[in-house]
Amino acid sequence: MKHYKIAVLAGDGIGPEITHEALKVLKVIEERNDVTFELMPASFGACAYFETGDAFPQATIDICDQADAILKGPIGLSHEEAKKIPIDQQPERGALLPMRRRYNTYANFRPVSLPKSLAHFSPLKPEIIGEGIDLIIVRELVGGLYFGEKEMGVNDKGLRYVRETLEYDEEQIRRIMHEAFKLASKRRKLLHNIHKSNVLKSSVLWNEVMEEVAKEYPDVKVVNFLVDAAATALCLNPTQFDVMVMENMFGDILSDQGGGILGSLGLMPSACIGPDKAYYEPSHGSAPDIAGKNIANPYSMIGSVAMMLENSFDMAAEAKNVWDAMQGVFGDGYSTADLSKPGSGVKMISTEQFGDKVVEKL
Amino acid sequence: MKHYKIAVLAGDGIGPEITHEALKVLKVIEERNDVTFELMPASFGACAYFETGDAFPQATIDICDQADAILKGPIGLSHEEAKKIPIDQQPERGALLPMRRRYNTYANFRPVSLPKSLAHFSPLKPEIIGEGIDLIIVRELVGGLYFGEKEMGVNDKGLRYVRETLEYDEEQIRRIMHEAFKLASKRRKLLHNIHKSNVLKSSVLWNEVMEEVAKEYPDVKVVNFLVDAAATALCLNPTQFDVMVMENMFGDILSDQGGGILGSLGLMPSACIGPDKAYYEPSHGSAPDIAGKNIANPYSMIGSVAMMLENSFDMAAEAKNVWDAMQGVFGDGYSTADLSKPGSGVKMISTEQFGDKVVEKL
Ligand SMILES: CC(C)[C@H](C(=O)O)[C@@H](O)C(=O)O
Ligand SMILES: CC(C)[C@H](C(=O)O)[C@@H](O)C(=O)O
Repeated sequence: MKHYKIAVLAGDGIGPEITHEALKVLKVIEERNDVTFELMPASFGACAYFETGDAFPQATIDICDQADAILKGPIGLSHEEAKKIPIDQQPERGALLPMRRRYNTYANFRPVSLPKSLAHFSPLKPEIIGEGIDLIIVRELVGGLYFGEKEMGVNDKGLRYVRETLEYDEEQIRRIMHEAFKLASKRRKLLHNIHKSNVLKSSVLWNEVMEEVAKEYPDVKVVNFLVDAAATALCLNPTQFDVMVMENMFGDILSDQGGGILGSLGLMPSACIGPDKAYYEPSHGSAPDIAGKNIANPYSMIGSVAMMLENSFDMAAEAKNVWDAMQGVFGDGYSTADLSKPGSGVKMISTEQFGDKVVEKL
Repeated sequence: MKHYKIAVLAGDGIGPEITHEALKVLKVIEERNDVTFELMPASFGACAYFETGDAFPQATIDICDQADAILKGPIGLSHEEAKKIPIDQQPERGALLPMRRRYNTYANFRPVSLPKSLAHFSPLKPEIIGEGIDLIIVRELVGGLYFGEKEMGVNDKGLRYVRETLEYDEEQIRRIMHEAFKLASKRRKLLHNIHKSNVLKSSVLWNEVMEEVAKEYPDVKVVNFLVDAAATALCLNPTQFDVMVMENMFGDILSDQGGGILGSLGLMPSACIGPDKAYYEPSHGSAPDIAGKNIANPYSMIGSVAMMLENSFDMAAEAKNVWDAMQGVFGDGYSTADLSKPGSGVKMISTEQFGDKVVEKL
């Protein structure tokens, strides 16, 4: 019998609700496989800060260190609430970025996927969705502006200024490129390399290293896209993409655009993988405005469980069952509030009902 | 009789073709107003580099210096062609960025506009377009990563690296904020401030200065959006936006996403305004793949003329006539190839025919 320890960080806002549904799914998987999941809940984000004065407290670090995988809900406060917390203890700077840094989770996989049968979820016309959108953004997650030095002060003209650095070295680029090429090899053998080499010198290095790595994957076709052109193309012709690789900030923006073209950020699970540890999280925020209302979409959190099953526990078949179960719920015409606007023909169900229906399908 | 000198930089790729149509329109305006336009053509971009060895040659600088306004076509080469030119003479680094720097054109206005009647152009469903999209992106154009120091080398681990800096001081932020608030005051009194303050310290300063400036415009409502959330929202609910203000790189990406939601980058004119000089350009690239085929959409270039008439020559009424004429051509069911895909019901016309029809309508 296999035994896995999972650190469960429910997070802020809608985090606890959608985590609750994800854990229901995990329980079913446990019951019918030769595996036990030891859940280790821990406090992380704004909730942790309010409880302990630290957004990523030592107790949580210890639990994460011991865990075989980390399941993490969204974190964050509203713009106004965030102002009440010292900037370096805000949940992003105080918890999320330290987590990424600690476990060096450089490879962030964000599927942007919508079958043709669910084209009605998307703000895009059916003819744009065609046979369905099925791409994955591979985002470098521990470099670039996110982790560069930051300098604030008053310059010699007496003006307040901020200077921050965007830095990449060839090794950081090479390892994410290998992830992207490997993934592309397993899929359509098509890799879109997203860059801004007409302005950024870091993109020039990015592209150089990409070309070096490409030689090791001669069967993968590379298509180069400027990041701005990619933002246009994601709206006009998203089905041309299969695997897209890009640096940290570009990945942040384009993956949320990905949620936009699907119809909801609630459809955006993700895996964040480092050399020795991986964590799984929805790509979206904690949506404080709808927290506690039992209306959030748990898809992204349940999808993150599926990614954990596949990547951390080598349970690809069960991962597929989870995806299929969620598609089945959609296929029956149900979804949460984000995707069941009046007139859409989709029957609205609550966060809990969504979780229950997924469990039924499993 | 007023007399204006206009530097005309047709640029690369489709630049000459669409500039040709824009100049036809300018001629009509001249004929029926008490004004003369002295056109001063000059070479700029890759074409200038191939002719003179310099992408922004001194002769062109002199012409631009003397001009009352600059009308600039798109510049640039294909990814493969660009590699044949030394990196600092590539048209973006060798011509476009030096132009922005020289004239300190910090305020870039990019309208993203589509009336309800043209909703069929957009990849978005008609219910998303609603009563029409009509927003303007106000992009800071001479700061941030675009103009920061860049350092390349080999680090102490023997690895190639690049480090570049993103810098803003309060004065750079304040002046673009004033532009944005002034514009918002004249429109729906709604300003979306786009930032990434949960990660970037420059966004923290950005927001601080925004709040200071906001006090001078008490009738403008400010809504804060993280840049990633804005990328989602531009797909899901673009009509919520009126004026959006953001730093340079964010503006680059989101404005091209804007072209995406309209249906073509060919619908994206822009104005780049500095303290003493302004230039006008399409937001898109030079599209080398379709150059010389008489199929490019000249809307963005003719729209740039309209923006020039209004901003540099105080001819708002004629500017409106130009916009109306272009809408009239669309209204008659015509457009260029980008917006007349088979089955769309739109009748395809050439670049030249589009220009001719606009002239007829004027
Ligand atoms: C919360 C925030 C710091 C984070 C990011 O910018 O990476 C989020 O937007 C994401 O995409 O995971
Ligand atoms: C050509 C390029 C340097 C430019 C930019 O990035 O600003 C273009 O994309 C634009 O948006 O004007």
